[in-house]
Amino acid sequence: MIVVMKVGSPESAIAEVCQELETWGLTPEKIIGKHKVVIGLVGETASLDPLQLQEISPWIEEVLRVEKPFKRASLEFRHGEPSEVTVSTPNGDVTFGKNHPVVVVAGPCSVENAEMIITTAKRVRDAGAKFLRGGAYKPRTSPYSFQGHGESALELLAAAREASGLGIITEVMDTADVEKIAAVADVLQVGARNMQNFPLLKKVGAQDKPVLLKRGMSATIDEWLMAAEYILAAGNPNVILCERGIRTFDSKYTRNSLDIGVLPVLRTLTHLPIMLDPSHGTGRAEYVPDMAKAAIAGGADSLMIEVHPNPAKALSDGPQSLNPDKFDRVMKELAIVGQAIGRWSKVPVALT
Amino acid sequence: MIVVMKVGSPESAIAEVCQELETWGLTPEKIIGKHKVVIGLVGETASLDPLQLQEISPWIEEVLRVEKPFKRASLEFRHGEPSEVTVSTPNGDVTFGKNHPVVVVAGPCSVENAEMIITTAKRVRDAGAKFLRGGAYKPRTSPYSFQGHGESALELLAAAREASGLGIITEVMDTADVEKIAAVADVLQVGARNMQNFPLLKKVGAQDKPVLLKRGMSATIDEWLMAAEYILAAGNPNVILCERGIRTFDSKYTRNSLDIGVLPVLRTLTHLPIMLDPSHGTGRAEYVPDMAKAAIAGGADSLMIEVHPNPAKALSDGPQSLNPDKFDRVMKELAIVGQAIGRWSKVPVALT
Amino acid sequence: MIVVMKVGSPESAIAEVCQELETWGLTPEKIIGKHKVVIGLVGETASLDPLQLQEISPWIEEVLRVEKPFKRASLEFRHGEPSEVTVSTPNGDVTFGKNHPVVVVAGPCSVENAEMIITTAKRVRDAGAKFLRGGAYKPRTSPYSFQGHGESALELLAAAREASGLGIITEVMDTADVEKIAAVADVLQVGARNMQNFPLLKKVGAQDKPVLLKRGMSATIDEWLMAAEYILAAGNPNVILCERGIRTFDSKYTRNSLDIGVLPVLRTLTHLPIMLDPSHGTGRAEYVPDMAKAAIAGGADSLMIEVHPNPAKALSDGPQSLNPDKFDRVMKELAIVGQAIGRWSKVPVALT
Amino acid sequence: MIVVMKVGSPESAIAEVCQELETWGLTPEKIIGKHKVVIGLVGETASLDPLQLQEISPWIEEVLRVEKPFKRASLEFRHGEPSEVTVSTPNGDVTFGKNHPVVVVAGPCSVENAEMIITTAKRVRDAGAKFLRGGAYKPRTSPYSFQGHGESALELLAAAREASGLGIITEVMDTADVEKIAAVADVLQVGARNMQNFPLLKKVGAQDKPVLLKRGMSATIDEWLMAAEYILAAGNPNVILCERGIRTFDSKYTRNSLDIGVLPVLRTLTHLPIMLDPSHGTGRAEYVPDMAKAAIAGGADSLMIEVHPNPAKALSDGPQSLNPDKFDRVMKELAIVGQAIGRWSKVPVALT
Repeated sequence: MIVVMKVGSPESAIAEVCQELETWGLTPEKIIGKHKVVIGLVGETASLDPLQLQEISPWIEEVLRVEKPFKRASLEFRHGEPSEVTVSTPNGDVTFGKNHPVVVVAGPCSVENAEMIITTAKRVRDAGAKFLRGGAYKPRTSPYSFQGHGESALELLAAAREASGLGIITEVMDTADVEKIAAVADVLQVGARNMQNFPLLKKVGAQDKPVLLKRGMSATIDEWLMAAEYILAAGNPNVILCERGIRTFDSKYTRNSLDIGVLPVLRTLTHLPIMLDPSHGTGRAEYVPDMAKAAIAGGADSLMIEVHPNPAKALSDGPQSLNPDKFDRVMKELAIVGQAIGRWSKVPVALT
Repeated sequence: MIVVMKVGSPESAIAEVCQELETWGLTPEKIIGKHKVVIGLVGETASLDPLQLQEISPWIEEVLRVEKPFKRASLEFRHGEPSEVTVSTPNGDVTFGKNHPVVVVAGPCSVENAEMIITTAKRVRDAGAKFLRGGAYKPRTSPYSFQGHGESALELLAAAREASGLGIITEVMDTADVEKIAAVADVLQVGARNMQNFPLLKKVGAQDKPVLLKRGMSATIDEWLMAAEYILAAGNPNVILCERGIRTFDSKYTRNSLDIGVLPVLRTLTHLPIMLDPSHGTGRAEYVPDMAKAAIAGGADSLMIEVHPNPAKALSDGPQSLNPDKFDRVMKELAIVGQAIGRWSKVPVALT
Repeated sequence: MIVVMKVGSPESAIAEVCQELETWGLTPEKIIGKHKVVIGLVGETASLDPLQLQEISPWIEEVLRVEKPFKRASLEFRHGEPSEVTVSTPNGDVTFGKNHPVVVVAGPCSVENAEMIITTAKRVRDAGAKFLRGGAYKPRTSPYSFQGHGESALELLAAAREASGLGIITEVMDTADVEKIAAVADVLQVGARNMQNFPLLKKVGAQDKPVLLKRGMSATIDEWLMAAEYILAAGNPNVILCERGIRTFDSKYTRNSLDIGVLPVLRTLTHLPIMLDPSHGTGRAEYVPDMAKAAIAGGADSLMIEVHPNPAKALSDGPQSLNPDKFDRVMKELAIVGQAIGRWSKVPVALT
Repeated sequence: MIVVMKVGSPESAIAEVCQELETWGLTPEKIIGKHKVVIGLVGETASLDPLQLQEISPWIEEVLRVEKPFKRASLEFRHGEPSEVTVSTPNGDVTFGKNHPVVVVAGPCSVENAEMIITTAKRVRDAGAKFLRGGAYKPRTSPYSFQGHGESALELLAAAREASGLGIITEVMDTADVEKIAAVADVLQVGARNMQNFPLLKKVGAQDKPVLLKRGMSATIDEWLMAAEYILAAGNPNVILCERGIRTFDSKYTRNSLDIGVLPVLRTLTHLPIMLDPSHGTGRAEYVPDMAKAAIAGGADSLMIEVHPNPAKALSDGPQSLNPDKFDRVMKELAIVGQAIGRWSKVPVALT
């Protein structure tokens, strides 16, 4: 932590700041510059709030943090080694991680009925997906929109898991539902709108299921990693980060802007595996193939793609869903890029 | 709802779209323009999703909504009449609304101990505030930061209410805590990070206490009013909107950008009372007085201002808190502007 | 300037960085923290680019600037004294500055013909405006939109000046037009789209006419002050800053978001006078009155308001223009707020 | 264009709007919905401003454009055919376009001296680049930063062209410099800060050299295409669009956010070739390789990559420059992705 004093700060003010900082258990070291004095703080500063330090004296201009605010999520925490999140599915273990093939997660926005979810599960599995996504509880902007089938949809997901052998990823929105969902899901998804729902993060952090943490639509990278830190600090080491599009000044042609640029940035900051969601990231099925290819070439460990047997009739998010035939074609295109960069699974999936 | 067909759409495609729309219970009316055909939809379109309509045919270029997505929150719902939210406090009824004096809510970010909260309550009351704000449960970016004293802080808020006669506003973060907090608070606050925590909105919508709904830091006005709609639709008509700063491209000097411009916009869209929070909106105590004056002159019905007896030692949000002496001065400045525009209470507050 | 070394940087790397910095004429001072080493740089660092320093060694994590990047625009440059920009107009000298009454600038987006500009000039003068704005050269998003009447409009502005006694503010877009416009205008306006048109900034900086510098629609405060610095460094000390709305994620109801929060921030950073433009800042005439009042209460030194004799027939920016009757009413409302805070001219304007 | 009337608009008001629209030469067609009346306008609406129409009556709620605002830049203008921009270079013709190999443009931010620019030119050519970029006139945030060597740098670019056989791309900032620069450059670059410098767009539109139009850092896609429209409307059909990173709420780790998502969006809107600039788009050399690979996989027609023989000593933008050895490696990685998707030139470049 670095304290920058204002131009013209009297020596007495600087001395008082140093004294106060010593009472906080820190060792201040002064650097007297040409125009300004700055004070370096030696000691345990990670838990200090720069904004709070600033209140010590009106002569303080700003307080700069030189330590990262996250610890367990940091790359240093694992000495530069990427972490792996391995999930048992009926079809076998699947591992998310930098040194593993790209894992594709596919399925509809929401679980509508038994037939549609089981059909979709089998189709996406045959095309190469390893997980089925599908919402039982849906966050919807309008209270008058379909809110998901809830508990009965969880049973359908369990049935689709059995029928297809795929692992299940589904969203949890309320602390009250966590156990119920964890009983069925292989991976618990925390959605973008709940990225800073801290009671929920603590609760999923206390489960023994991996957590897929979507980035809030205007969350900074630091805030996102701090949200992951909540889960890690609660004892759950299995966190996958998912970028799903951020909010910018232009949403005329895409619902969000898929921030593919997080890929190399996160690699230098964290050991956690990284998923990209081009379906939510663009909001338009026709843009998904190009963005999915870009994501793989840019280094994503995993992709989440919406697939619906009949997008026009989908109860939610129809326009961003591919139908199964288009998904088949996309997977073939992705395989070409994935193979070129050595991150595509050569082992064929189990067929049932 | 208006369906815009692509240039060059074949007549058969247009006919098919119209047929399909009829099966949705709508009456399509075609307008054949110079370059394009557009189809106006007559019928109950409010609950339709424009994105879903778009999936009907690849020849559809876009679907434009001409109805507002919110109903109960709309100004039309009350035929242009602003709503009033009246809260009983020990010192008497206080009303938030366009035709009432500006209501000032003040207090610390978090409740730290009995002495500080009671002292603060009396000081802000004497300066003219009608409500005490203070956090028992705090949303904090870092899991390692102070998270609020929880239940024991609720007791302290009850004591401060009794000692000062002020109404209490405090935040609720978890559906599991709603009843417990509603037993103490006069107004339930939903924070910016939970603006789209839909289970929480439904739960506070089922309480008989008014709800203060903070705008999410990157929520559009429509999304914010839709969040209010969740509460209204759940049966609670007493909602106050609070703008607390939005996220923009520049956060070097202010934590957020206080969007004072929502004042005239909301007046044309909704009947709900509007509060502004210049403390969170800027993040710096020194910027609060000017922004508070601007808010009053711009038409705010209420202000939320952070006050802490010793900001340098605050457990959270110190830099944006005024101390009680500065708050006294600010209230005198606000009175000048408030009186000039005829929205300042002349009745002195009850003193104990 | 502070150099933060990565965790685990070898001593040799730190020594090399220090050696290299000494060759740049700087005195490095090391602070050895618990986890990291930081190096404070003593010497002339203002012109150094932090990004360039970072290239010295791969062991450098980041370089933090503790000096402000602007000098002549800084409040320190005038030892805390606000600057005043005084402009001679036929009706007398008008001064823009913190210790002066609010100066109102009004007029149409573009100069359309002699009658409209002269009528408007007289009407806004009678209502209390001191300057007439009006575009001869218009920046338009579309090449097919009206681009301004150019040189002939300059003559009309000169006529309006003579007829009304008001000073003239008009926009300059091309270095090739600067002299021609400076021959007529009392204040040269650099528009938002040209805030970083550096050849233009240098050219207006070489004129002896004051410059009104509009903030770019996504310019940070630092970038805006650096643009002012270009003009100041070129020898022109008379710069007025004008905030005219920034671009955010929500432009459904307003074209831009008027960033009133810059008022207290700029006061702590710069001595330059500050204008706000609620007409461009909202894009809707109906929102102008509330935002203008808020701007005055928040401390603006000047306001720019669009007025057109018949907004529905305006060749540009009609919807954000008030008609003269509405402008009269707004000025009366503004006077109430302005008088309350002691910043409204009591001297009646000269009538012709 | 669609005019949406407010709920409760009297019939007389609707009739008046229709009458007024007829005087504008339009044929209004009313659709009477359940809650609202909307009026479709048949006729030549492309040049109308929706905001201006809105002023016709206070009963108009909003005016929606259903035509695209750009014509010559639209995909329809070429009946769905992508355009090709072919540039003669000493080494032969190079074509930018969807059906051609990816064209790589490389070189330093600014031209510093003869040796550095010629060395760099030969190195990037040997690695596979077809164009040399290098700034003679540099837009710099600070007036105290190096502003480019200007005219003398143009001579050095000419020398580098002769020595390497590469085409030259360099930036033009001032209308006064256009001819001078066009005499040397093979492609004229309009920078992000000048994307809406309309006099400059008109001037480069009147040259016979192709124009590289960088996207403004907060320009919407529509504004960008309208800027291209200025050049096309001025008679120059050879425009290449270049995305170079947009401004978002998070710039802690990257200077800008490279908006790779424009690739599929632009393909549906325009026929113009598309370049991506991962160097400016991220601001950090270490992030360039992943973003460059993503750009190719996502469908970019061209890449611009900064290369400097000694980034630590660069006079500008050092941290985002690769050195020639790293550029060699990146080109090999890019070739793998480019070949996989069938867009990499197999023909070896001419060696001198």
